[in-house]
Amino acid sequence: MSKTDPRQLICELCRQFYTQGWVSGTGGGISIKEGDRVYMAPSGVQKERLQPEDLFVLDGSGKVLEAPAGNLSACAPLFFNAFDIRGAGAVMHSHSINALMATLISGDEFRVTHLEMMKGIAGHGYHDELVVPIIENTAHEHDLADSMGEAIRAYPKAFAVLVRRHGVYVWGKDWAEAKRHAECYDYLFEAAVKMRQLGVDASVPPVERAEAAQ
Amino acid sequence: MSKTDPRQLICELCRQFYTQGWVSGTGGGISIKEGDRVYMAPSGVQKERLQPEDLFVLDGSGKVLEAPAGNLSACAPLFFNAFDIRGAGAVMHSHSINALMATLISGDEFRVTHLEMMKGIAGHGYHDELVVPIIENTAHEHDLADSMGEAIRAYPKAFAVLVRRHGVYVWGKDWAEAKRHAECYDYLFEAAVKMRQLGVDASVPPVERAEAAQ
Amino acid sequence: MSKTDPRQLICELCRQFYTQGWVSGTGGGISIKEGDRVYMAPSGVQKERLQPEDLFVLDGSGKVLEAPAGNLSACAPLFFNAFDIRGAGAVMHSHSINALMATLISGDEFRVTHLEMMKGIAGHGYHDELVVPIIENTAHEHDLADSMGEAIRAYPKAFAVLVRRHGVYVWGKDWAEAKRHAECYDYLFEAAVKMRQLGVDASVPPVERAEAAQ
Amino acid sequence: MSKTDPRQLICELCRQFYTQGWVSGTGGGISIKEGDRVYMAPSGVQKERLQPEDLFVLDGSGKVLEAPAGNLSACAPLFFNAFDIRGAGAVMHSHSINALMATLISGDEFRVTHLEMMKGIAGHGYHDELVVPIIENTAHEHDLADSMGEAIRAYPKAFAVLVRRHGVYVWGKDWAEAKRHAECYDYLFEAAVKMRQLGVDASVPPVERAEAAQ
Repeated sequence: MSKTDPRQLICELCRQFYTQGWVSGTGGGISIKEGDRVYMAPSGVQKERLQPEDLFVLDGSGKVLEAPAGNLSACAPLFFNAFDIRGAGAVMHSHSINALMATLISGDEFRVTHLEMMKGIAGHGYHDELVVPIIENTAHEHDLADSMGEAIRAYPKAFAVLVRRHGVYVWGKDWAEAKRHAECYDYLFEAAVKMRQLGVDASVPPVERAEAAQ
Repeated sequence: MSKTDPRQLICELCRQFYTQGWVSGTGGGISIKEGDRVYMAPSGVQKERLQPEDLFVLDGSGKVLEAPAGNLSACAPLFFNAFDIRGAGAVMHSHSINALMATLISGDEFRVTHLEMMKGIAGHGYHDELVVPIIENTAHEHDLADSMGEAIRAYPKAFAVLVRRHGVYVWGKDWAEAKRHAECYDYLFEAAVKMRQLGVDASVPPVERAEAAQ
Repeated sequence: MSKTDPRQLICELCRQFYTQGWVSGTGGGISIKEGDRVYMAPSGVQKERLQPEDLFVLDGSGKVLEAPAGNLSACAPLFFNAFDIRGAGAVMHSHSINALMATLISGDEFRVTHLEMMKGIAGHGYHDELVVPIIENTAHEHDLADSMGEAIRAYPKAFAVLVRRHGVYVWGKDWAEAKRHAECYDYLFEAAVKMRQLGVDASVPPVERAEAAQ
Repeated sequence: MSKTDPRQLICELCRQFYTQGWVSGTGGGISIKEGDRVYMAPSGVQKERLQPEDLFVLDGSGKVLEAPAGNLSACAPLFFNAFDIRGAGAVMHSHSINALMATLISGDEFRVTHLEMMKGIAGHGYHDELVVPIIENTAHEHDLADSMGEAIRAYPKAFAVLVRRHGVYVWGKDWAEAKRHAECYDYLFEAAVKMRQLGVDASVPPVERAEAAQ
């Protein structure tokens, strides 16, 4: 099984994300689409102990082709949002404390500007404004699908949707871009919260200093 | 020895918890009950270096069947509280700084609401209130047994008891649920402390925002 | 391939720096000069997955001798600044959150004094003042080259240049010194930010206490 | 070479401490005394890359018996303080940020009470007061020896001496106790700083709550 086999990759990335605190307590997860096959971890399993044979396999319409033990993740419709509306090749869902806190210092949008790591998100430059929509959480994960879909359509430049008091969904054209996006967004969430604690608003451009530097 | 052998599991989980800072300084630990056998680490050993042959084995009444070097953990009566009163299959005791801090921002109960990770604790939904009783610490660990027992009976929805300025006991029907509970509770402790630092009270529902979103 | 082979070392150090959060999201990197050969990771690759055969090899004038897949890093002129102006043997570029925050609590210079870890930076003692110049970030990394070069020349005692809202470049006479410098500077950035949060200004000598102790 | 060989142990513990941020930038270290032999890392080496053959070996009087490449650590007289005055079997020196910050929130002594992890330090109970003397840092590490010696004699219950704006020396009767002490002290330093950030003074007993609980 090669290193770029999606089953292998999902297990490997889950272990890595576990050490970063993104998928603790069986939460969070990753789904990869390769050709017309979608690979996904079952619901409620320990993500750092996932084995390739534990994964569900679906076709592009969401029909289950291989069902191992356990239930299909309640995230499935949310992952398909990104596959269908954006043509994503991989979607990651994290319960990172940084993402959680980012939703608590923001209104309906998370906004930052003038941070180098913004350049790790496709289509964004250092002087741009990076915006991630925040949707309200619901009692059941599958009830998020509609509002997430709306947010995805309303924010065509974003590769992520934050869920208030919950976490974040991040995607990319393939697993490598989705992972890069997930790491860069998480860094920006952490930076914005830490900036707030030092009294700096990450959504406001550092005008005077920039002018002074010219 | 299989991966789900309780001796092997306890050693493996202790190493994992050590890297998370839950069992440093020989503190904390895990006990697993399988059938009528209870497995437990000895007192005062380095948890990240534990070997399967180091474990004590007790029967369901608390009688020691196998005694390796060292002393039986002073946590034994506390672990048995959860086995006996709740029918737990595994109990974990952590000195996580997050648990410690959670007891310092709370009165007799730790309370949070409207956080997605609450759903990782059996019987809890996003809109519920999650409550963990906090008991006062004592000079000797075994003196905690009575007040922990009272707290367990008084809070039948809780799968954890916090001990002021000390840490937390967490359990579940089996090791996997106990571990999931331990990770979710720890996340909630960390989140509540960080929310407090940003001026947000985790025990208060976000009323206005939720209404605004309807 | 020996452990001190520059290709091997770059990969090993990138994995290590990834776990420290310095090169997440494909950001950051390391370049080592050995004899008249300069080794460098390509642009935009996952640093923790780098393999020896992925590296670019350049000669001392910056001419590419071996070009694997991918593009030459936009950091190349910045790395060469340290090689050419300072005779460095290795340069590291980190997006550490500590470095980012350090640029937000400082004006045009990051300054600390009376911290033991200053002694890890060549030519600095405990009672000295350690100064790192901060240059303003630009839209494109290669546009930093001129202002970084000016800063390097203006601060001959510094082995690092901070880039506002971006990160830091650190160098040393060889890879071991560059790594030691990178770790010590990062520690000092973290300490200064944490001191600020406790109301202590790391740039001010602790006069009264020092006098009281005599 | 067995796992309890002091050369092996020093290398293993240095790798472990490196991941905890205690010995970054070549700082910090460990010395173990076995019989009349003292094992010690050389000065200025990367602690996480240490190999058994890199270690200095001294006799009980401090005479060097085996000198590998590099210089004897400037910490040697400080390590011998604990061996000679306290009969320690191992001494650890850490630059942990927690230790550094603990010296910045304290006067001449670090004091905490009513924290369970105090029980990990030999001779301390939950209701006691745990005190660690803080000495002022000096330009050269060997100049600390006299004031450290005085502090060790003046605080016979302490197994550690903090050095202002520098770090901490911790010892125990053998390597296992020294490691347990190092982990417990570090936890207490971290807890006290975090308590301060939440407005709780770790040196003051929680009188009212304790009374209320009786």
